[in-house]
This record gives sequence, C-alpha cells and structure tokens, in this order.
Amino acid sequence: MIDQFLGKLLWDKDILNQSMYYSLIGGGKRIRPVLALASAEVVGGDPEKILPAAVSLELIHTYSLIHDDLPAIDNDDYRRGRLSNHKVFGEANAILAGDALLTYAFELLADPGVGLPERQLRIIREVAVAAGKDGMVGGQVSDVAGEGKTLNLDQIEEIHKGKTGALLTASARLGGILAGGTEKQVKALTDYAKALGLAFQIKDDILDVVGNSEILGKPAGSDLRQGKATYVSLLGLEGAEHQLHDQILKAQSSLKPFNEGAIFLTELASFIQQRQH
Amino acid sequence: MIDQFLGKLLWDKDILNQSMYYSLIGGGKRIRPVLALASAEVVGGDPEKILPAAVSLELIHTYSLIHDDLPAIDNDDYRRGRLSNHKVFGEANAILAGDALLTYAFELLADPGVGLPERQLRIIREVAVAAGKDGMVGGQVSDVAGEGKTLNLDQIEEIHKGKTGALLTASARLGGILAGGTEKQVKALTDYAKALGLAFQIKDDILDVVGNSEILGKPAGSDLRQGKATYVSLLGLEGAEHQLHDQILKAQSSLKPFNEGAIFLTELASFIQQRQH
Repeated sequence: MIDQFLGKLLWDKDILNQSMYYSLIGGGKRIRPVLALASAEVVGGDPEKILPAAVSLELIHTYSLIHDDLPAIDNDDYRRGRLSNHKVFGEANAILAGDALLTYAFELLADPGVGLPERQLRIIREVAVAAGKDGMVGGQVSDVAGEGKTLNLDQIEEIHKGKTGALLTASARLGGILAGGTEKQVKALTDYAKALGLAFQIKDDILDVVGNSEILGKPAGSDLRQGKATYVSLLGLEGAEHQLHDQILKAQSSLKPFNEGAIFLTELASFIQQRQH
Repeated sequence: MIDQFLGKLLWDKDILNQSMYYSLIGGGKRIRPVLALASAEVVGGDPEKILPAAVSLELIHTYSLIHDDLPAIDNDDYRRGRLSNHKVFGEANAILAGDALLTYAFELLADPGVGLPERQLRIIREVAVAAGKDGMVGGQVSDVAGEGKTLNLDQIEEIHKGKTGALLTASARLGGILAGGTEKQVKALTDYAKALGLAFQIKDDILDVVGNSEILGKPAGSDLRQGKATYVSLLGLEGAEHQLHDQILKAQSSLKPFNEGAIFLTELASFIQQRQH
C-alpha cells in the first residue's frame, strides 16, 4: 500500500523530483508508516483512509537520512547499499531534495479527509514537535556535538529518544489519533512505540557488531571504528541483547488493552528483534 | 508584533536554538508576515489572532536563506551585514537549524485557534505547495541549474515566481483565508501579491546595480560579477525601472475592491518600490 501510494504521487522529470524519488524508493523498511497504519487498524479504523498521513512519515524519515549523509554531517557515501543522495545528485540538490521532502510531508499531513480536521491539526503539531528541534533534529545536533566524547548510557538514550524515538512514537500516535482511538488506546500505543524505538536502536548497535555488511547495505563495525558509544560498547553484546529482549517484552505487554487485535503489532516487535538489516 | 512574538517563543540555550534564533532576529524586513497580517485586516479580521501563522512565514523564509547561503549552494559569507549562519555555527548546524525552522513553521501553522480548522488545513497545504518542490525549493533548484547559462526574461521570471513569488502570494492568501475573506477578496489579494512579488525581485536587481553595499548589507554588483541574467541586464536600468513601476501600479489597482481599507497595502507597495535595501 505504501509503495503503491509513493509511486502514484506526481513526480516530474526534473532533477529535484528525481533526487527526492531516488531516496524515497531506496528500499526502506517503511517502519514508520507501517506503525501508523497498524495503529489505525488496532483502534478499529480504516488504514487506507489515513494513508497520505502515514506516508508523510516516510518522507520525513527519508529527508533526515539525506541530510544526515551529507559531507558536513555524517559524510556517508552509501545508504542501503546504494550511493547516498549527494553522491548521485550533488550536495546542493541533496540539501534541497531533503527540504522539499520535509515540506511535501506536511502537504500530505493536511490532505483533506485523512481524519477530523481538529485531529489532523493535533497530529501536524505532534509530528512537527517530534521531527523538530525538540525531537529528531535536536537529537541529530546532540549526536554531532557528542562525536569524540565519552557518553554514558543515559546520554546515548537521550540522543536516541530524539533522533529516532520521537518520530516512531508520533507514528503510532498518528494512526491511533486520526482513526479515532480513545486516549487510553493512544496511551497504550505510545508506550508500545517508545519501547519499540529503544529496541530498534539497541538492535542497530548490535547489528553494527555482529551484522553482515552486505545484508546491512552499509559497512558493519563503523560505530567501533568511529569510537562511538553504543549499547554494545557500554553493556557488552550479552548485556545489549538482554536489554533488547526487555524492551521487546515491554512493547508487547503495552498492547494488552487490544487483546488479540494486536497480533500484527506484536509480530512487528518480534520482527524488530530478529531483523538482520 | 512580529518581533515580539518571535522573542517570546521558547528558545533554549543549546547551539541549535541559538543558531535558529541568530538568523531569525537578523534584521529582516518581515515582508511575508506583514503581508499576511495586513491581508487579514483588509478583509475585516483581527491580525493578532493569526499571528502564529503569519510568523511561520518568516521561519520558512529564514530557513531558505540559511540553506541558500551554504557553501554547496550560493556560498555566501554574509547576510544582512552579518556573518551567515554557517560561518558562525558551522555547516552541520546551519543545515539542521534550517531544517528545524521549517519544521517549527508547520507547528505554528497548526496552532489552535488561528482560524477555523478546515481553513487552517487549506493554508497548510497552500504554504507547503508554495514552499516546496513546485514553489520555493523548485525555484532554487532551477536557479542553481541556471548558473552560467544565458537565460531570457521568461526563464528568470519563472525562477522568481518559484523562489520568491509563491511564498509571497501564499502569505497574502494566508491572511485573507484565515481571517474569513470571501473568494473574491482572496483573489484580489492574490493578484496584488503576485505583482508585488515581481516588483520585489525587479527592485532587488536594480539595487544590485545602483545600491550601496553598506545599506544593502551585502556587496552590490554581485549579479554582474557572477554574470547572472537580471531584469537590468536584460532590459537596461531604465527598462527595469519601467517594469517595476508597472508592477507596482498593477499591485495597487488589484486592491480596488477594498476601497480605502487598503491604505496600508497600497503603501506597502510604494515602500517596495522605494526601498534602499
């Protein structure tokens, strides 16, 4: 559903559209929109109805990857096994393609009919906060500022909460709120997504140590080489695996209010735990 | 009103907030929010009520200046007589500060109570289109792509419509629509803003030739040195002055439906014509 929707959006033939599209169809796991659609479903809504809003989360995620890969930030030449955006389209176009993706995301969030207008406005505010200076961008700035410093577990958790946790949490809330979930249901989805986000990051750190570069689509061991503090460097591999397990259980037990309705979200957590890339 | 509102927003002490704030309070003319507030007033609305939405336009404009000044794009070390953002905070922080300003803008556009929710959503879509790939960002990409090429008048007009025209037009429409103007009134404001935007650009080109670098806050004559096609290079100074005059008259005559109510907007057009920076 997500990839079909992305393909149907209007993409002109000019370099800007091509650059946006290149990174958007670059084989992401689509975790954020999937989380939004599944959250809409679990509160009894129709996932298809919120599709434009759900897809906007992938646009935001993609823009953040393009900008993070830039020479001035992480200077990564590869992403998901392909050349990063600026290596193909040049730095200027990569910066501007990221800007345009972020902007387009808000156009989709305001798409008529994805939810009651008041709920849509609430979601636009929540997504903006999650993606902005007190969320994703703020986490990225802290991450850049922390390079070469010795960080402790609390500090790296704080960075991850901003860099990845905030938008993942907003994704689950987007689905739950737009589809008319009760505040209790939205709270359960929030708890689920917070634990899932942490689990996601711990798994990332583990894969950097035990993963296969080819399956990862990026060189394994790069955290180690950069001297970056990770869950593995601070807790050891076994300690990190233990933490991962705890967070997955926490995520899954947050879903209790939904009973059997939450099979997909339960399995999504297991998928995060077992993923190889 | 605008500067007061900007000062009251929550700015933390970290480098990201400081970087955002540095460019935001860097002495802009605030044309976009002024245009929005005056448009709200001319249709009989309360400008103060739409203030957060009007200020969002300044955040979007500011983010675009930060990104345009980057080494990979226009490589400008100065902006409004001060060092550009990346010269003070570094490239990584400048990219991320721009991202955070753009994101914050949409949080403000979704601020509860600036208008009826349906109208707010319409404005969010319009601003996103005006600022995005088919508007401001698209214009910037065309501008970068056109460097070193010989462009004709139609081509530079097309670039300007995207780079500056689209957001100026959206600013007037934002005020008119949020404040409940009729479609006829909104159409008049749209015509006004389109002519004003063109006039603004022609004046920019004229100032680059006849302006004083110190008053401009940037080196005069830079278009000439870069071999850029401008209204002056294509029409001559007199021809450009003539075009400027025509556009100002066009803007002012679009205001007829408002009678004496439009004194401020009429004078704003004269200010654009006469400005020295």
